[in-house]
Amino acid sequence: MMHNKEINNIVIIGTGNVATNFAMALNEKGKDIVQIYSRTEESAKELADKVSADYTTELHKLEKADIYIVAVTDSAIEEVVRQIKIKNGIIVHTAGAANIDILKSVSSDYGVIYPLQTLIKDKNIDFYNKVPLCIEANNEMTEEKLLKMAELIAGKVYKLNSQKRLVLHLAATFANNFTNYMYVVADKLLKSQNIPFETLKSLIEESTDIIIAQETPAVYTGPAARKDMNTIKKHLELLKNHTEFKKLYELITKNIINKI
Amino acid sequence: MMHNKEINNIVIIGTGNVATNFAMALNEKGKDIVQIYSRTEESAKELADKVSADYTTELHKLEKADIYIVAVTDSAIEEVVRQIKIKNGIIVHTAGAANIDILKSVSSDYGVIYPLQTLIKDKNIDFYNKVPLCIEANNEMTEEKLLKMAELIAGKVYKLNSQKRLVLHLAATFANNFTNYMYVVADKLLKSQNIPFETLKSLIEESTDIIIAQETPAVYTGPAARKDMNTIKKHLELLKNHTEFKKLYELITKNIINKI
Repeated sequence: MMHNKEINNIVIIGTGNVATNFAMALNEKGKDIVQIYSRTEESAKELADKVSADYTTELHKLEKADIYIVAVTDSAIEEVVRQIKIKNGIIVHTAGAANIDILKSVSSDYGVIYPLQTLIKDKNIDFYNKVPLCIEANNEMTEEKLLKMAELIAGKVYKLNSQKRLVLHLAATFANNFTNYMYVVADKLLKSQNIPFETLKSLIEESTDIIIAQETPAVYTGPAARKDMNTIKKHLELLKNHTEFKKLYELITKNIINKI
Repeated sequence: MMHNKEINNIVIIGTGNVATNFAMALNEKGKDIVQIYSRTEESAKELADKVSADYTTELHKLEKADIYIVAVTDSAIEEVVRQIKIKNGIIVHTAGAANIDILKSVSSDYGVIYPLQTLIKDKNIDFYNKVPLCIEANNEMTEEKLLKMAELIAGKVYKLNSQKRLVLHLAATFANNFTNYMYVVADKLLKSQNIPFETLKSLIEESTDIIIAQETPAVYTGPAARKDMNTIKKHLELLKNHTEFKKLYELITKNIINKI
């Protein structure tokens, strides 16, 4: 008997940003979303209606499907997974920082499908072109099925094990959350002088374009890259009443100067 | 007798990234670049040829002009300015972190025209739409002339005094150089696992788009924003052999959690 290598019937567990984006992207490509689970009926029904699915608020009432996608907040995954009893089918989670093994008690076929993107429930994103997916599976057959499903909805799919995925998640924290924090600091400094953040937008766009065009990022400009101690001194003087920003400025400047 | 409020004849002092971009942008809009100064004949001639100007390698041989734009590296401005002797005309520098007053001994009319952008000599940038200019002058007539010249070549012109310009320069250091450093850290972490930086590019583009679309930046996502101590612990464990990255991670995470 031939194995059917295609995933067709999908249960989505969760109704947040990631769950919603996966449900919509998979539904758009013709996959059958059979059921949506949420703790609250209202949000379960809301997403279920969008993708013509059934819904439930009870984890022990999950329907039969080829795959169960657990897309809940990181800290809730283990608790949710503990309550899931399925006879067959693949179970996956969608978290960058959670190991594949937290699913092994649920099914003989399990894996991960991690979207490397900031997903927002109500924002239409060009999923195929803007959301790279990282997949992992505990066996070859499952990997093949996951890969096929991932490639249907995403132009870029990477196979990464849990350790590499965690490093990627950490790198993404620097490249996304921490850069955003740098913009927050810049904005707070500007606000103290009633200068609008808008003044920096052309600079931010241009320097992002330069980063995107390069194979490897670098710091070519700025006082630290030039070892311009005179300007660094002026900046630190401005920061003398912002202890936390000053510490951050000193640390990053030291690292840039020392090429760390 | 009516004052002529328009700047027509321009001497550019310097041939670096900023000097080149100003010379090209002003020349394109029909201004007469009468002379280029550089310490080396080769670079003076190269830029002079591009904008049909004379050139010199001697600061005491500057020609008569309406404005002298000193666009040399920050640390060289004062040394260059000391050698300039002019009878008339406005003198300006182009530095974010240098006070207007360093020019007061040269002319009775002086000011600043600071481009808030990463300028690269050999890269054609859409100057008008991508390079905001910040101007300052020591008197109204000079400000009026500078403003007119700035608005000819730039779609966005801000009047800022030296103190505000320095704060803006500091904010730009966070928003540009320090974000670039975050990408450098991300890249180094990825390289340790042979993951290409390219995997992060969609995320970087999307999160920059979100920042640009907002009036005020914020950190909405990531382990620190969620106070997800479990993920933070996993990240710190990965960083245990990268002392400097670990310090940086701890400092930024603490600031995000404490909304500093």
